[in-house]
Amino acid sequence: MDELIKKINQFRDDRDWRQFHNPKDLAISISLEASELLENFQWKTSEEAKEKNQENIEQELADVLIYSLMLASDLDLDVEEIIEKKLELNDRKYPVEKSKGNSKKYNKL
Amino acid sequence: MDELIKKINQFRDDRDWRQFHNPKDLAISISLEASELLENFQWKTSEEAKEKNQENIEQELADVLIYSLMLASDLDLDVEEIIEKKLELNDRKYPVEKSKGNSKKYNKL
Amino acid sequence: MDELIKKINQFRDDRDWRQFHNPKDLAISISLEASELLENFQWKTSEEAKEKNQENIEQELADVLIYSLMLASDLDLDVEEIIEKKLELNDRKYPVEKSKGNSKKYNKL
Amino acid sequence: MDELIKKINQFRDDRDWRQFHNPKDLAISISLEASELLENFQWKTSEEAKEKNQENIEQELADVLIYSLMLASDLDLDVEEIIEKKLELNDRKYPVEKSKGNSKKYNKL
Repeated sequence: MDELIKKINQFRDDRDWRQFHNPKDLAISISLEASELLENFQWKTSEEAKEKNQENIEQELADVLIYSLMLASDLDLDVEEIIEKKLELNDRKYPVEKSKGNSKKYNKL
Repeated sequence: MDELIKKINQFRDDRDWRQFHNPKDLAISISLEASELLENFQWKTSEEAKEKNQENIEQELADVLIYSLMLASDLDLDVEEIIEKKLELNDRKYPVEKSKGNSKKYNKL
Repeated sequence: MDELIKKINQFRDDRDWRQFHNPKDLAISISLEASELLENFQWKTSEEAKEKNQENIEQELADVLIYSLMLASDLDLDVEEIIEKKLELNDRKYPVEKSKGNSKKYNKL
Repeated sequence: MDELIKKINQFRDDRDWRQFHNPKDLAISISLEASELLENFQWKTSEEAKEKNQENIEQELADVLIYSLMLASDLDLDVEEIIEKKLELNDRKYPVEKSKGNSKKYNKL
């Protein structure tokens, strides 16, 4: 992961792009890339989307991850740490015995 | 990274949630979490958002990453590989000499 | 408004497109068009965006409205009625005396 | 339509909220409300969503429309005019004879 983040930061430093990368616009960028990913599934079933748009799905998912890792890096967040903390939080919000096989939101369990 | 993906998959298998996780709804989920992240910046500057909403920013960014890693896992994609491939693609779309210090889209360079 | 909705429905009926327009994909479409609108503001202040992207802002805002009116029409919703109902609801959630000059969410008032 | 926009503007003027409403944050708001609308369809078919979440769908669709009308008003755009202009543009991008019964994007027709 550290290696990956280093490459991503190298990419933007080579282009002198950090000046544009304030957290608010990075959050906008993550949302825009998530939409471009989702566009591959518009008017389609999951199966049709995978068959017709596999390459673009890969690229847009990569973009969501790249911008997310940039924002984490700029906010000095450790990616593994925030993911593990969130999984623990979800573990308490969605206890196994109550949420097994059930897609309800935690406030409706 | 492999360790992290294993924990995320463990979380949903404990709850028998993979039955809900088709790629189209996971792509929707990534987009929804990206919006919840962005909501922290609504009506605020980056600085105000960081000061007031730091904990929630961490949690929502973690959610974007968690759903993105789930989708990558379900599509049998290697996260590091798709990120490196995308960086190489961007490297060709945005050559350093043309894009240095310039936020224009590649089709306007 | 009725006239406008009639024209929008004529447009898709001419192309036999209603078969694709289930509410879930229309909701996805509204979200995608909202992102395309937002893209005009990425890496920019409001002023820069208005100056450089005015025409595209108009077009994408029109797309958000067109898909929203399609969804309302398909769900047999009266647009004016749901807007007025929501304004009344917001009026109770955000009483003037508490929310004047204050951008806090209703659950933090 | 004019009557509706007047009511929406009255609502925010009563609360002195125009000071927060710059176009960039309004575009963010439209995107966030579109996501809240879409959330009603997450992990569901269109039919399940309509059955379980009808009231929330109405409210979130109203919010998308309210913020869109605010942005149009702040940018001095005539809503009917931009919609009609966009329908004409789409009419040329998607000629009836080529796009009938076909959900392909215009650049793939």
